[in-house]
Amino acid sequence: MAIRVGVLGFGGLGKAAARVLAGKREMIWVAAVDRGGYAYHPEGLVAEAALTAATQGTVGHLGGYVGPDSLERAIAQVAPHVDGFFLALPNLPNDFIAQTTRQFIAAGWSGVLVDAIKRTSAVTELLTLGDRLQGARITYLTGCGATPGLLTAAAALAAQSFAEVHRVDIRFGVGIANWQAYQATIREDIAHMPGYDVETARALTDAEIEALLDRTDGRLTLANMEHADDVLLERLGICDRRQVTVGGVVDTRHPQKPVSTTLQVTGRTFEGAIATHTLTLGDETSMAANVCGPAFGYLKAGWEMHQRGWHGIFTSADTMPRFVR
Amino acid sequence: MAIRVGVLGFGGLGKAAARVLAGKREMIWVAAVDRGGYAYHPEGLVAEAALTAATQGTVGHLGGYVGPDSLERAIAQVAPHVDGFFLALPNLPNDFIAQTTRQFIAAGWSGVLVDAIKRTSAVTELLTLGDRLQGARITYLTGCGATPGLLTAAAALAAQSFAEVHRVDIRFGVGIANWQAYQATIREDIAHMPGYDVETARALTDAEIEALLDRTDGRLTLANMEHADDVLLERLGICDRRQVTVGGVVDTRHPQKPVSTTLQVTGRTFEGAIATHTLTLGDETSMAANVCGPAFGYLKAGWEMHQRGWHGIFTSADTMPRFVR
Repeated sequence: MAIRVGVLGFGGLGKAAARVLAGKREMIWVAAVDRGGYAYHPEGLVAEAALTAATQGTVGHLGGYVGPDSLERAIAQVAPHVDGFFLALPNLPNDFIAQTTRQFIAAGWSGVLVDAIKRTSAVTELLTLGDRLQGARITYLTGCGATPGLLTAAAALAAQSFAEVHRVDIRFGVGIANWQAYQATIREDIAHMPGYDVETARALTDAEIEALLDRTDGRLTLANMEHADDVLLERLGICDRRQVTVGGVVDTRHPQKPVSTTLQVTGRTFEGAIATHTLTLGDETSMAANVCGPAFGYLKAGWEMHQRGWHGIFTSADTMPRFVR
Repeated sequence: MAIRVGVLGFGGLGKAAARVLAGKREMIWVAAVDRGGYAYHPEGLVAEAALTAATQGTVGHLGGYVGPDSLERAIAQVAPHVDGFFLALPNLPNDFIAQTTRQFIAAGWSGVLVDAIKRTSAVTELLTLGDRLQGARITYLTGCGATPGLLTAAAALAAQSFAEVHRVDIRFGVGIANWQAYQATIREDIAHMPGYDVETARALTDAEIEALLDRTDGRLTLANMEHADDVLLERLGICDRRQVTVGGVVDTRHPQKPVSTTLQVTGRTFEGAIATHTLTLGDETSMAANVCGPAFGYLKAGWEMHQRGWHGIFTSADTMPRFVR
């Protein structure tokens, strides 16, 4: 039986998620929610039709609901028919995903939730919900995109060669042809830059973002980002959060990556040797592929855990994702 | 509470395992078994003393038992005091580890078993024991060394970026100062070479191995090996077993790796791009670090699964190892 999947949020990430799901036999994409409405079809939504509906203001035009309070209504009316949701929501404000999670708990829904959240503070808040999620029989997997996500899990794996981990360094390259396709993501990225925070970045007008990008030829260079890879690895005893660094370069004017995405784990082996394992992602893999692929891989793993009765909160670094065909 | 760990087999791998465990607070090494006896101490064995005892013929001289049928006796008398075993046994003959597993089942023991087995045929036989292991309340994790093991799990993770995986290529480099330290491993490697099989390699005298190594300046070059990475990835639907290739170079006269160990996963993303993710292990990490580290990481994960009631057979590719401090 295919897993019935819903996607919350229909921005750049949600749209990519719809296209990823279109190729899967083991998952059926039955629900999509955006600010203006929701779409639901028990036999599956069609990605192209959903993208067209979204250009008219909301995915709800596809058939479902158009109007205010779309998230609350979707949780009440559609969620009972959905096994698992990918929360492809912008995390602006910083507790938006935790708030949404509380709504699922309050509604008495049981199933799998997966996010691709980035900030340490946001994940830290989610981790406090473990007991309530367990009580609600929800299996929640947090930090399941590219970073945190694929690269955090790879770090947890690479750490196995070492008696002691000294450093985990994540450097990502992202290339997108047009920043408007990822408005929330770009605002989240700007929030990591000196002089900005989540609230000021969220308040930027499009014209202000254009002006900022004009000054850097369309590139955002990010260093020492507050990324939850740190707390996810610390939680497993792999290293101290201060030993984890995340940075990268986002090019908003070319689809090619400005730099390769790499993960490096440096440590000491039981024999005393100091060494570094390096994972380099293929430059041709897009942010969308490296975020949505893992997200649905973790959703499949989460569904297996859910059926076995493992509820509560889990992370990308403590769960092996399953390949979704 | 520290996990009480036993090591079955005290050749090159078992000795390295003892040294790895010496640095762990979360595990206590209470039992060791070799062909000539077993050692047991509820408060922990001392690695250096065990290595000395082994030079006198058997680890049993450390205190425990010296004599025949050491494995059967250890399973009957010591196993009840052990939470999990690392099966650091040579897989010669090819069903030796499956046979040993059947002895654990027959003895009514419940706990965690982890192997670092290599051959597809050996893992395939173990996978058939799933139901019996589940009935016995044993949590068995197979293929938990370097390859299969760390690199198989990394392949399962890297596959997440792709809609379709085309190829998984594992190339390892191993450097050991002296082949005699890994007699069983070297015989297992020779068994992969043209003109040899498991039985003929097992029957080689030390002098015959010396002569073989003299002809190649101490190097064994291995290609298209029968390695269980293939069946572990196929089992998860990641790719067909024929798309997985494993090969490498073993230098038996220098501790440095003759080539770097790499994993490459090539596939097509949902957007149609073809790309390759590459994991390169630090050259300074030894085979012992890359095998024993993951083995105990999987044992810790297995213990957690065991306590949650997950019994049966699992693999390195479907389980995230836990970091052991």
